[in-house]
Amino acid sequence: MRFFSDNAAAACPEALAALQEANRLDTAYDGDAWSARLDDAFSDLFETRVRALWVATGTAANSLALAALCPPHGSIVCHRDAHIQNDECGAPEFYTHGAKLLLGEGEGAKLTPDAVAALLATVRNDVHQVQPHAVSITNATEYGLVYTPDEVAALGRLCKERGLDLHMDGARFANAVARLDCSPAQLTWRAGVDALSFGFVKNGGLSAEALIFFDAALADATLYRRKRAGHLLSKGRYLAAQILAMLKDDVWLRNARAANAAAARLAEAAAGRLVLPVEANEVFLKVSPEEAAALRAQGFDFYDWGPGEARLVTSWDSHPAHVEALAEAIGRL
Amino acid sequence: MRFFSDNAAAACPEALAALQEANRLDTAYDGDAWSARLDDAFSDLFETRVRALWVATGTAANSLALAALCPPHGSIVCHRDAHIQNDECGAPEFYTHGAKLLLGEGEGAKLTPDAVAALLATVRNDVHQVQPHAVSITNATEYGLVYTPDEVAALGRLCKERGLDLHMDGARFANAVARLDCSPAQLTWRAGVDALSFGFVKNGGLSAEALIFFDAALADATLYRRKRAGHLLSKGRYLAAQILAMLKDDVWLRNARAANAAAARLAEAAAGRLVLPVEANEVFLKVSPEEAAALRAQGFDFYDWGPGEARLVTSWDSHPAHVEALAEAIGRL
Amino acid sequence: MRFFSDNAAAACPEALAALQEANRLDTAYDGDAWSARLDDAFSDLFETRVRALWVATGTAANSLALAALCPPHGSIVCHRDAHIQNDECGAPEFYTHGAKLLLGEGEGAKLTPDAVAALLATVRNDVHQVQPHAVSITNATEYGLVYTPDEVAALGRLCKERGLDLHMDGARFANAVARLDCSPAQLTWRAGVDALSFGFVKNGGLSAEALIFFDAALADATLYRRKRAGHLLSKGRYLAAQILAMLKDDVWLRNARAANAAAARLAEAAAGRLVLPVEANEVFLKVSPEEAAALRAQGFDFYDWGPGEARLVTSWDSHPAHVEALAEAIGRL
Amino acid sequence: MRFFSDNAAAACPEALAALQEANRLDTAYDGDAWSARLDDAFSDLFETRVRALWVATGTAANSLALAALCPPHGSIVCHRDAHIQNDECGAPEFYTHGAKLLLGEGEGAKLTPDAVAALLATVRNDVHQVQPHAVSITNATEYGLVYTPDEVAALGRLCKERGLDLHMDGARFANAVARLDCSPAQLTWRAGVDALSFGFVKNGGLSAEALIFFDAALADATLYRRKRAGHLLSKGRYLAAQILAMLKDDVWLRNARAANAAAARLAEAAAGRLVLPVEANEVFLKVSPEEAAALRAQGFDFYDWGPGEARLVTSWDSHPAHVEALAEAIGRL
Repeated sequence: MRFFSDNAAAACPEALAALQEANRLDTAYDGDAWSARLDDAFSDLFETRVRALWVATGTAANSLALAALCPPHGSIVCHRDAHIQNDECGAPEFYTHGAKLLLGEGEGAKLTPDAVAALLATVRNDVHQVQPHAVSITNATEYGLVYTPDEVAALGRLCKERGLDLHMDGARFANAVARLDCSPAQLTWRAGVDALSFGFVKNGGLSAEALIFFDAALADATLYRRKRAGHLLSKGRYLAAQILAMLKDDVWLRNARAANAAAARLAEAAAGRLVLPVEANEVFLKVSPEEAAALRAQGFDFYDWGPGEARLVTSWDSHPAHVEALAEAIGRL
Repeated sequence: MRFFSDNAAAACPEALAALQEANRLDTAYDGDAWSARLDDAFSDLFETRVRALWVATGTAANSLALAALCPPHGSIVCHRDAHIQNDECGAPEFYTHGAKLLLGEGEGAKLTPDAVAALLATVRNDVHQVQPHAVSITNATEYGLVYTPDEVAALGRLCKERGLDLHMDGARFANAVARLDCSPAQLTWRAGVDALSFGFVKNGGLSAEALIFFDAALADATLYRRKRAGHLLSKGRYLAAQILAMLKDDVWLRNARAANAAAARLAEAAAGRLVLPVEANEVFLKVSPEEAAALRAQGFDFYDWGPGEARLVTSWDSHPAHVEALAEAIGRL
Repeated sequence: MRFFSDNAAAACPEALAALQEANRLDTAYDGDAWSARLDDAFSDLFETRVRALWVATGTAANSLALAALCPPHGSIVCHRDAHIQNDECGAPEFYTHGAKLLLGEGEGAKLTPDAVAALLATVRNDVHQVQPHAVSITNATEYGLVYTPDEVAALGRLCKERGLDLHMDGARFANAVARLDCSPAQLTWRAGVDALSFGFVKNGGLSAEALIFFDAALADATLYRRKRAGHLLSKGRYLAAQILAMLKDDVWLRNARAANAAAARLAEAAAGRLVLPVEANEVFLKVSPEEAAALRAQGFDFYDWGPGEARLVTSWDSHPAHVEALAEAIGRL
Repeated sequence: MRFFSDNAAAACPEALAALQEANRLDTAYDGDAWSARLDDAFSDLFETRVRALWVATGTAANSLALAALCPPHGSIVCHRDAHIQNDECGAPEFYTHGAKLLLGEGEGAKLTPDAVAALLATVRNDVHQVQPHAVSITNATEYGLVYTPDEVAALGRLCKERGLDLHMDGARFANAVARLDCSPAQLTWRAGVDALSFGFVKNGGLSAEALIFFDAALADATLYRRKRAGHLLSKGRYLAAQILAMLKDDVWLRNARAANAAAARLAEAAAGRLVLPVEANEVFLKVSPEEAAALRAQGFDFYDWGPGEARLVTSWDSHPAHVEALAEAIGRL
């Protein structure tokens, strides 16, 4: 019973079926019928005209977005615990050709306007220091917290004041929307977001993420950067088809709700042990080494997360019986 | 009836079935059971220990290989018509951080040792010029010719003499092996090849290519470069599974033979019109604009290839009836 | 008696004296009194507002200019024999983060609008190929020819039509202006040039070149790129002072005229042997190995330039007696 | 009376005289007689064979060194207050093609083995994180402290244990040696340093720094990187000559001793106000805004350094009368 990572989950039936459906002769790269529908599909979802590009990984989506927002001689503000800082092996630096990440603080990997402003205040405005060009936040965060539309909007206002662009790493964007019960528009462009990495893989996809530009002009150069990075798959229709299948009938939301509900059940069982509130599909809890061993002995797999802490991640397909079993096992500790 | 591109072909049933089979919980990235089998599977195929990495595109495979073989201040010899020069939007330059491509000449996009030596002779050995570090050849070439094992070995010897590494872009490696009826070993490391981009997508895969290092040491840094480029898919098992399924029972060879046979049939029909010999799955033929229009009017799609020429590409799933129809239509021109 | 290179020449007294004059306490980097005068000094010279940055080498000036004009996924048209292609060890690729150079043809390293247009016609307008963003010409060329204002203007018009920027590598700009007896404005911005590398080192400076932007907006990001490349010298006043001293009283023109005159004298003597017309300070002549040896035996040093050819370069301080001696020695061959 | 920066100081007579001496025809780039003597001169000084390259700035020296020691997918440990992090506009990221800096803590910008080890312990050894390849320390530090040979050796041992290379930013190396009265060898390669940026500009040079490789193999690729970065000046003899002139008769040491002595005099006067011990040529002292204003009213210029603090920098040519006047003025506060 694995609670390691939503990356380890299976693909949902809709995504798999879409591959079969797309398995026909069509034009290569992104010239096919499925890819051609992406802009419209996301524009409908976001209630505004957007440009949407498929890519195979969240790292590629994030890095292409950041390269669109920040020159090589600039910097990007993010949280010290951000995925782009810790888990992408320097991909932002590779794609931006050497921009720097400025690392901010905040509980649960959340940035506040004050934290960002404090960081900006450390930068001298001269040519000896790279100047900030963008802020990147992760929603839901790497620690399973969500930014509300108001919180994003507060950051968005700060960005506009300072001439910065705002990127959202939405590897778990679906979980955030599901939690907040808000519209995708409210959580993004209406709050000042310029580019969004919209994750599908952790949420039941096989190999497709969407990079959404709310400013169409940013997309143009990105088409070249995507190709140049080897991310313009020659049979791109299989990526587009997965995404379209998960947008249809809000499969993406249904999947995220299932993952969130499973995490909520675990959170309920672990009430006294939570390191952080559980707002999406990740549960961080305090467990002694003996307790962790006891859980593993019962067949539950998960990450140790520093001394005395564990991370449990649920996914769209977390088996209810497994979740219930784990909840009860935690309760018994 | 599309003869545009093997990139536009469907995926073969074995590859699709592999996705279903891999659709289970497993470890993320390349920690899964399928990915773990790649090194062994390719080592068996190549009759020597190799390191094999999956990536999603041939451009990524080529660029990662070149970055392993050439520093930013170096250059790579390739043919003027090479895919890495003309069709990857500068991906080699991106991944190598600015190495240069030195462009050689040769019929049908084939390099000869003489052509390479002539190019090397133009480079002064001083710090004002980037120095050659590698040669990259495409087999089968962009024009559908194949390098024989002897031809590769001649280039391999030159490379060793000059301290250069040898890369083979094998987007259509299967077609070359099928044509030559040689062992994969003969056509690669035994002939001096250091790294091979082994294509599966044009040959019936969905989204997986293999990057093969015959020198294991080259693979280590590439693992970081792959991640850093956003090419370490979190559900990598779907890529590994496709490749394994196509290696099993030589599906890859069977598919390539089918494509080659279809091209041979077209070549036979077009005997008097061939621009180049047909050795793999591409047919370049002379057709007047009126003739091209006539073929299109009968439902055949293909690329114009400069004035008075057309490119027909067959694939693993070229429908025999379509091939026959096209052969006859060409015959009637 | 050395006719190897104008790079090997001494510095002129005005430049050396300027170092002494600048040898006082002042603000570091480019905050000093001398650096502050550069924009005005060059604006006067060019009869329009320009931005002028000092750098230590022509390679830095060229590369910073190209990085300002071309994104990493773009390309720059230049002559096959351009210094930026052959003599800068990939500096343009380093500074642009991997843009490609498209190599054109033309007698004496000169590009024509037709040659540029022919090259542009080879580029497909799709994301698989890097798209041209700039043209770079060298005036005087690497083979000592000059572009007239009309010739530059013809290229400038083509660039504007195609949305390309125009860079001039003016390592020997002074020699070109001296030859043409035109205004610096005529030869640059009035003819459509966007950025100029204005060389001083080959013309009697020690270590300072000027990068001139006729579009001020291009200069802003370049200030960061210069610092980031380690080219913002902490005692920049020594560079600015050299340049100002050579602008004053047209020392730069006087020096260039002297070098041109010396070359003209050699050209006269070598009339029947010239490979190309002599329009600046370089003389390419046909000499047999025996003749070359004979000249060397008389104490003249110069470069062999391919089989049967030699390059003689004069400089601001070519000693009239040496020039005369060489002229006579050539005449005697 | 300026105590702003040693970058703002004049050049010493020996350096200036060397320019005159070098002002003769010679071979371009680093092919001249002066450049040819650098390896020997520094090998003598360091009592071991070294490779020495001139460059025009400390930023270039540091960045070239780091690029030699760390691949694009690696990281470099340095202090949070290091010049390479804060004052080079991302030059290390540019030259390394996107390596990351890992920022450590320590009083007065000094790293300890414990601080480095603590930082290394935060890095997971997997492909998702850039792996450390080098440590960079500044001696004397940005806050005017010095590492003793024993302190460097302790870091050197840690580096060897962990497979890391050790770089020393010696913009004020002369001041450190002068303070410690040790041999250059003791403070560098004998203590485990692999590459040293040996500063001359802050110490009386005009425009030349030396990059010293104690491992000759590291120098080879750096020759290409230097050219590619536009740092191979065509009249490099002027740089080599400055350096040689300052090595001769230990001018570099004499200059540094003078600057250190001036700082010591100020430190003595400011005994109760020192933020940090004064070990080189920088004095950080606590002054109220009113006190700072009072000093400025008496004609002393210096940097404010955060609230309530000021930085005074002395240099080789700090006028004794000015130093004495400032010391007395501080005493009177």
